[in-house]
Amino acid sequence: MQGIVAVWTDSALETNRRGMMHPIRYDLIVIGSGPAGQKGAIAASKLGKRVAIVDRNEMVGGVCIHGGTVPSKTLREAILHLTGFRHRSFYGNDYVVKDRISIRDLAARVTQVVERETGVVRDQLRRNGIDLMSGVAQFLDANTLEVQGPIDAHILQADHILIACGTRPSHPADIPFDGKKIIASDQFFQMDEIPRELIIVGGGVIGLEYASMLVAMGVEVTLIEQRNELLDFVDAEIVEALRYHMRRQGAIFRLGEKVTAIQMDERGRVVANLESGKHIHAQCLMYAVGRQANTDLLNLQASGLVPGPRGKLEVNEKFQTAVPNIYAAGDVIGFPSLASTSMEQGRLASCQIFGAPAEMSAALLPYGIYTIPEISMVGKTEKTLTDSMIPFEVGISKYEELAKAQIVGDHTGMLKILFHPDTRKVLGVHVIGESAAEIVHIGQAVLTFGGTMDYFRDTVFNYPTFAEAYKVAGLDGLNKL
Amino acid sequence: MQGIVAVWTDSALETNRRGMMHPIRYDLIVIGSGPAGQKGAIAASKLGKRVAIVDRNEMVGGVCIHGGTVPSKTLREAILHLTGFRHRSFYGNDYVVKDRISIRDLAARVTQVVERETGVVRDQLRRNGIDLMSGVAQFLDANTLEVQGPIDAHILQADHILIACGTRPSHPADIPFDGKKIIASDQFFQMDEIPRELIIVGGGVIGLEYASMLVAMGVEVTLIEQRNELLDFVDAEIVEALRYHMRRQGAIFRLGEKVTAIQMDERGRVVANLESGKHIHAQCLMYAVGRQANTDLLNLQASGLVPGPRGKLEVNEKFQTAVPNIYAAGDVIGFPSLASTSMEQGRLASCQIFGAPAEMSAALLPYGIYTIPEISMVGKTEKTLTDSMIPFEVGISKYEELAKAQIVGDHTGMLKILFHPDTRKVLGVHVIGESAAEIVHIGQAVLTFGGTMDYFRDTVFNYPTFAEAYKVAGLDGLNKL
Repeated sequence: MQGIVAVWTDSALETNRRGMMHPIRYDLIVIGSGPAGQKGAIAASKLGKRVAIVDRNEMVGGVCIHGGTVPSKTLREAILHLTGFRHRSFYGNDYVVKDRISIRDLAARVTQVVERETGVVRDQLRRNGIDLMSGVAQFLDANTLEVQGPIDAHILQADHILIACGTRPSHPADIPFDGKKIIASDQFFQMDEIPRELIIVGGGVIGLEYASMLVAMGVEVTLIEQRNELLDFVDAEIVEALRYHMRRQGAIFRLGEKVTAIQMDERGRVVANLESGKHIHAQCLMYAVGRQANTDLLNLQASGLVPGPRGKLEVNEKFQTAVPNIYAAGDVIGFPSLASTSMEQGRLASCQIFGAPAEMSAALLPYGIYTIPEISMVGKTEKTLTDSMIPFEVGISKYEELAKAQIVGDHTGMLKILFHPDTRKVLGVHVIGESAAEIVHIGQAVLTFGGTMDYFRDTVFNYPTFAEAYKVAGLDGLNKL
Repeated sequence: MQGIVAVWTDSALETNRRGMMHPIRYDLIVIGSGPAGQKGAIAASKLGKRVAIVDRNEMVGGVCIHGGTVPSKTLREAILHLTGFRHRSFYGNDYVVKDRISIRDLAARVTQVVERETGVVRDQLRRNGIDLMSGVAQFLDANTLEVQGPIDAHILQADHILIACGTRPSHPADIPFDGKKIIASDQFFQMDEIPRELIIVGGGVIGLEYASMLVAMGVEVTLIEQRNELLDFVDAEIVEALRYHMRRQGAIFRLGEKVTAIQMDERGRVVANLESGKHIHAQCLMYAVGRQANTDLLNLQASGLVPGPRGKLEVNEKFQTAVPNIYAAGDVIGFPSLASTSMEQGRLASCQIFGAPAEMSAALLPYGIYTIPEISMVGKTEKTLTDSMIPFEVGISKYEELAKAQIVGDHTGMLKILFHPDTRKVLGVHVIGESAAEIVHIGQAVLTFGGTMDYFRDTVFNYPTFAEAYKVAGLDGLNKL
């Protein structure tokens, strides 16, 4: 199968190159090779379809690999290692593995991981017989794209097109980005050095992840957010714990504050002016408010599609846009804009396009937030349950009671399980601390199968593990009944 | 409740101290405060019973905390950190966080954790209103124990007694243990320095855990095991992977070799003579074969109980011994001798004694082995399925395909799921690599609820996590059908 596609494609490409510009025909063209695009392309290929995926050469793997998830999570591991952060409860708060950590120390590890991950993506596409077309795709009509590559151009045609073009940080015109002192969240490694102080504008997931990483390094971070609450989709107690731990590290939160101007002062420092009259000075500033979808690069009007605010595309529950043969998935369709959900959206979009069975229970999506400490959740929060008039009881385990947490030195974590007091059914799981994003999947499985708190009481958990927190929280919850 | 018990006990103790030696009455006396004893005592207390737990002052928490699980797992974390082991894929095989690691470097962390954990146990017992009696318990009859404490003695009486006295390393008379060069597995911190070479006799869980930790530190380890196979209850492919990785670190395996004598040579080095005629020399030797139950300290004959080989006690499915009012749980009853299962046995024994509902599905016990890399499993192995004539298919995920593994630098791990090709039901989960002992519980939940491979296909997993291995292995397995 794979071989045949390759031969066919090669000759078609050849025809194309000779300038005759016969369109190359596919069953599906995917725009963008990030998580949504990859999994959409692979799912279609596994259904026996001819698939092309288009992306700029340097962006294979999408923002997830380049500038987004993978670099920031690798940066996080590098910081945790080089600062010795995890080991400070044993060796004291002044313990470091490496003094004077430079941007280069951090970037070295990130570059390696980005290269390897790009290789993994290329390899997966190749093994699935998917044509990876290098270049920028532009619509000629709803079925036809022109791909302008580094050397030549191709015309591609398909019955169906999946737009998974992703987003990029917003660059409002009134902010004097220079990529050195005033940066977007994907420009961290362009800074000359780790600043002593940094202002982060925007308290969303990205802003908080960077803020918590940088305070762990000893950077004086001031986080400015227009809303009064952070991460309003996350359990309030967990957010409170995050803020508490970040504050202990030295973070300053300016919530409910609006930035009116960002400029450089006479001494070459950045200053953020707030509506409340405050002027906040720092060596550097990271602007992490909002993201702009890349649909503006696609000549979208030729397809008949009209993008929404910030270039976002609206889709129905089948991931179908207003133009019936065009589907969209991933960050371009908005919240939650997580790699994990984007993958699933891409896969499901292809299943919908080609009539394969597909089901995803949106209620059971896990969320992973890679702050320090890490946060993860699945199911309902106290707020959503209260709003829906569903009574609940809570079982809690503090990490400090777990042998594993003592052994690795995490005294900050906690796990809480929300459950129905009558049926004992698990309703939601919320975790902050080491391995939160891993162990949340245990609760997710119990939730999915409609399990009750009895499961945690009756199950043996490996000792010592963080997973034991379920046992402790389970018994705690049942004791409250 | 707690207050009342305390008052009652204080006055009873007072009577006892005055030399009248009226026995103090309990509903349950627990011998040993390790995982089985603790959870047995707490379960009985929660059922409203008066409970005493007896242990030597320096052994509160049992071998789990003192010399066993907690110290060895803390040692493992200390070694992983100080050697920089996890980061060598980024910084090269010669990378270390600390040069010349001393026993003291390692012991410092262990001492802290042991102290904290002992405090946690004492606190839990106190909060549950359980009398912690310091001393060695000896039977006077099947309902009566004399506890010889550091200052005075007490007589305790109860309708039921739970023996959770644990085990200690065997010290065969023909091995010249000196606690410095020829040591048992609980004497690691008594060595003067980290040896350059070490012989480990015994390839069980303890021997392998120490062997893998020490090779990670650059110690030349020779592991001698009488059987031809290691860990025969673990999936053979996983054991093979462990041996492969340990060999790459420099471990030498001498399997199917019987040690006939251990002695010191004229240069003050240890020599192990093998039946095959080999003489293996090294600076130190750790003997990790077999464990002796502590029942020989209990004056067991007064209770009417007769211990089995190595002092082990036989129990029925209710954890009841041959003497009907005496129960036993934990290492003293033999395999699997894991803290996790011992806890559950202790809890269930108390439930059985006092007629509370209790159920544990032994088929779904997870096993965690803290080698480097870590191993964990739940459910059936290929061997047990084949022996039972149950057909199976396998879904595999190599860690190197996971972004998380790239980010933390673990290229060695793998996860395999065994499932029924017709029903697609999950039959067993086997993991080697970072977080193995954590993520195995995801598979355990799916197994417990009778889930199929479809669960892994249809579920969204946080990205990047090791848990994603389930998704990859799930799709791999389903693609084979």
